[in-house]
Amino acid sequence: MEKDAFSGWMGIKILHAGPGYCTLVAAITPEMTNGFEVCHGGVTFSIADSALAFASNSHGIKSVSIETSISHTKPVRVGDLIRAEAAEQHLSDKLATYHVTLTNQLGETVALFKGTVYRTGREWVTN
Amino acid sequence: MEKDAFSGWMGIKILHAGPGYCTLVAAITPEMTNGFEVCHGGVTFSIADSALAFASNSHGIKSVSIETSISHTKPVRVGDLIRAEAAEQHLSDKLATYHVTLTNQLGETVALFKGTVYRTGREWVTN
Amino acid sequence: MEKDAFSGWMGIKILHAGPGYCTLVAAITPEMTNGFEVCHGGVTFSIADSALAFASNSHGIKSVSIETSISHTKPVRVGDLIRAEAAEQHLSDKLATYHVTLTNQLGETVALFKGTVYRTGREWVTN
Amino acid sequence: MEKDAFSGWMGIKILHAGPGYCTLVAAITPEMTNGFEVCHGGVTFSIADSALAFASNSHGIKSVSIETSISHTKPVRVGDLIRAEAAEQHLSDKLATYHVTLTNQLGETVALFKGTVYRTGREWVTN
Repeated sequence: MEKDAFSGWMGIKILHAGPGYCTLVAAITPEMTNGFEVCHGGVTFSIADSALAFASNSHGIKSVSIETSISHTKPVRVGDLIRAEAAEQHLSDKLATYHVTLTNQLGETVALFKGTVYRTGREWVTN
Repeated sequence: MEKDAFSGWMGIKILHAGPGYCTLVAAITPEMTNGFEVCHGGVTFSIADSALAFASNSHGIKSVSIETSISHTKPVRVGDLIRAEAAEQHLSDKLATYHVTLTNQLGETVALFKGTVYRTGREWVTN
Repeated sequence: MEKDAFSGWMGIKILHAGPGYCTLVAAITPEMTNGFEVCHGGVTFSIADSALAFASNSHGIKSVSIETSISHTKPVRVGDLIRAEAAEQHLSDKLATYHVTLTNQLGETVALFKGTVYRTGREWVTN
Repeated sequence: MEKDAFSGWMGIKILHAGPGYCTLVAAITPEMTNGFEVCHGGVTFSIADSALAFASNSHGIKSVSIETSISHTKPVRVGDLIRAEAAEQHLSDKLATYHVTLTNQLGETVALFKGTVYRTGREWVTN
């Protein structure tokens, strides 16, 4: 996380993390908007993708995203506080799949994300 | 595009755009990296999502993304110049689908993106 | 359901259905296998897609699938009894999104399916 | 192919196949329809998934589907002749990604499919 410059730019704060799950929050700033004056879909995706990365790497095995998808269900606006919860749906030797649900400060679902990762088998060195 | 703050932050330059297509480029900066010292998957997604937005709104009808997916096929690193080409695969009254291919400066495919948009039927006002 | 010939071929039995959800089961027969002697991925998809159709049309508004995806997490074999549970994640005027979880007779997850439908606004005539 | 019972049920005929690609056709029969009197989405998916399987296994390395998605762009009806063309978009040691385009006898695109496979590293034995 300390080395993750883009998650830093997004102002991501991790609330909970453990083997196979992660909950984080990020506030939407004016820099994150698109031409419709709502949050760029790439920012919402990025918040979810960060939750996926933290959840999938939590087992100590380096995991890389191979396929992810997102459905936007409600516009996200400047000032919204977005919460992303990643939950492991499947874990095998080489592959794992996660759902990430994104909600706003009113508890409304703003996006549904699914991600599959490839587990490289290499352990993280933590010194 | 002028009002799209996040595309501005990403340094996106549109090379070509017209009804149903868009080609744009963006250079990867240190701010865009993740904990693996490669480009955050959300940045690559965002570049593709911008190409989708420009291509799908090019018909003059406001279009909003409803479902998008991305497969990362090769790591993207600081200094890479990423080119995104969006091509319309299907266009109907209410829905349209696009493929966006992302390549690096060597012409290698780094990601494959697919996006479906809902066409609201509202015209863009271009004053 | 009575008019759904392919769901009939698959031997689908609906256990529960109501507004926004559906649980059904189907047994895997030798006709459903592929060249690997396991169930063809299209059959598992079809079972999930039927659950999506029943759940999304349960509100009385004709809904058509626009984008669906499936992750296969465990092989399905002849004799397995597959249970599909569709749960509504999002419902708006024009669009709705569902997760369908597929499990075998041991309760193991064999596939994860996500589907987004377009709600046409036309009501079902039921006489 | 000879051992693929479900592809046989669907009446699939392979027109061309080679390393990384496959073109096949299948005719839509009354058994393949759903409650809307159009072809069940699972049948269209299955035709595409078969094209993916033939294209991805054509390199002689056993490949299994890990994530696939389909966008339905036009209804498919009884009597339609569906052509599926699978084209390799990416090939690496462990993963490969394919687009499959489905068209009807008028050349209209009826569905767009994307699939990612895991390459097990085990060779096919061809005696």
